[in-house]
Amino acid sequence: MAIRVVRIVHLCLAWLLMSSILLKTADCLGWKKRLPKPCKNMVLYFHDIIYNGENSDNATSALIAAPQGSNLTILREQNHFGDLAVFNDPITLDNNLHSPPVGRAQGFYLYDMKNFFSAWLGFTFVLNCTDYRGTMTFAGSDPALKHRDISVVGGTGDFLMARGIATLSTDALEDSVYFRLRVNITLYDCY
Amino acid sequence: MAIRVVRIVHLCLAWLLMSSILLKTADCLGWKKRLPKPCKNMVLYFHDIIYNGENSDNATSALIAAPQGSNLTILREQNHFGDLAVFNDPITLDNNLHSPPVGRAQGFYLYDMKNFFSAWLGFTFVLNCTDYRGTMTFAGSDPALKHRDISVVGGTGDFLMARGIATLSTDALEDSVYFRLRVNITLYDCY
Amino acid sequence: MAIRVVRIVHLCLAWLLMSSILLKTADCLGWKKRLPKPCKNMVLYFHDIIYNGENSDNATSALIAAPQGSNLTILREQNHFGDLAVFNDPITLDNNLHSPPVGRAQGFYLYDMKNFFSAWLGFTFVLNCTDYRGTMTFAGSDPALKHRDISVVGGTGDFLMARGIATLSTDALEDSVYFRLRVNITLYDCY
Repeated sequence: MAIRVVRIVHLCLAWLLMSSILLKTADCLGWKKRLPKPCKNMVLYFHDIIYNGENSDNATSALIAAPQGSNLTILREQNHFGDLAVFNDPITLDNNLHSPPVGRAQGFYLYDMKNFFSAWLGFTFVLNCTDYRGTMTFAGSDPALKHRDISVVGGTGDFLMARGIATLSTDALEDSVYFRLRVNITLYDCY
Repeated sequence: MAIRVVRIVHLCLAWLLMSSILLKTADCLGWKKRLPKPCKNMVLYFHDIIYNGENSDNATSALIAAPQGSNLTILREQNHFGDLAVFNDPITLDNNLHSPPVGRAQGFYLYDMKNFFSAWLGFTFVLNCTDYRGTMTFAGSDPALKHRDISVVGGTGDFLMARGIATLSTDALEDSVYFRLRVNITLYDCY
Repeated sequence: MAIRVVRIVHLCLAWLLMSSILLKTADCLGWKKRLPKPCKNMVLYFHDIIYNGENSDNATSALIAAPQGSNLTILREQNHFGDLAVFNDPITLDNNLHSPPVGRAQGFYLYDMKNFFSAWLGFTFVLNCTDYRGTMTFAGSDPALKHRDISVVGGTGDFLMARGIATLSTDALEDSVYFRLRVNITLYDCY
């Protein structure tokens, strides 16, 4: 009997030792970590109405910088290369511009290619509704492909220290005046 | 006696099993993690003197972009909507502009609302004093409320891979030329 | 015999208790964590050809904003203070501009000091080669010293949720038209 107990204790100690080695390895020796399962997934839409000189009441974004020789009223030829726009767009739960907004998307986009569409984005979702209160900040390159990923680099409130990715899809694009982005947010760190 | 030992061993194994399941759950199945206790808390101040066309010797920030039709000397009406300023401001340990600086706050702010004050910030604290050497980088939306949180998105040196939040408060605001921000930084990842 | 077993069990329980206390302390009471060993290290180069009014075919970056009274063709005196440039630069594995690019560095730099060189950078490496597919996003202050660190604040694809630092070195600087940065990237979170 006592011998069986000793054997169980040995097993227990061996297990402890092994798991502590494994943990040590995973934490310290630079192996790839297993990706944790997402802790939150949300789909949100934001709506951008670009100022074009005639729609100042409705516009939610405006050009503020462009290369030498450009004006700031009309997006440039050559895929808008060099145009910098500030935006403050309503966020909705569905793809309807007139749905009640659940927050604002605030930040900027910066067109960065001459030969095709590409932009660099830095912006924050400021959410202020029943379900979510807090901010998520995004940064990264937006190659304007059908689907593209940018990084969630931080958050506050309900999204304190959020980390993850957002998959952007252009859900609508009308006459260089209106576009709507679908944002599928996947977070891996939730507190 | 041996039976009591067996019972203790069973308890021990049950505890191990349970805790390994709990750990697994917390790590992998997407439950909210418990927020770790902060590993560092600091209060710092930075001082911004906005260039207004007459103070080029003292100014620590300058407008560099604005919407069509604006000039870059004076902040715009309409809550400065669209104004982009670069800054390089002294950081102090107390609220006195003339205290010895412990570093520089470097980056930009971008006013992003017409109907009230709101800005998007991207900046870095470059600290270079006895107590702290390194940088912390911040990004996020600043709704210019009494207190507001932005994200600490990275760091170097003493703040390598810092993560956390900074609570900003406007500590002084004088004549659209000078403002002072109190920054209460709380970090959750310290190495 | 049974007494020895009981002693071992006690030791085992004591060890468990102690390690759970230690873990709790490390996680919750704000001690510094041990820095994990890097999980990835890469050296990459990117090449920036600044538009100067005459090189529009070759240029990979362009000024888009500057303080009042400046033009956007030539970098300003006074360490380019206030100049904002957008860039979309080829990335290579070695220091040869004509090597096959493995991706693009996209984003902006913003000169932020009058009395010496300093810039704030926000950019993304978009890698699209056999070895690496994905993006890494960087942000931070670049004091233009010989070597300087900025933060890796996020990533996608092969670099999903990357965190770490990048040490920048100016590898070449020619006539305010061309510069080449060596980027030594060290990641501590790999999934």
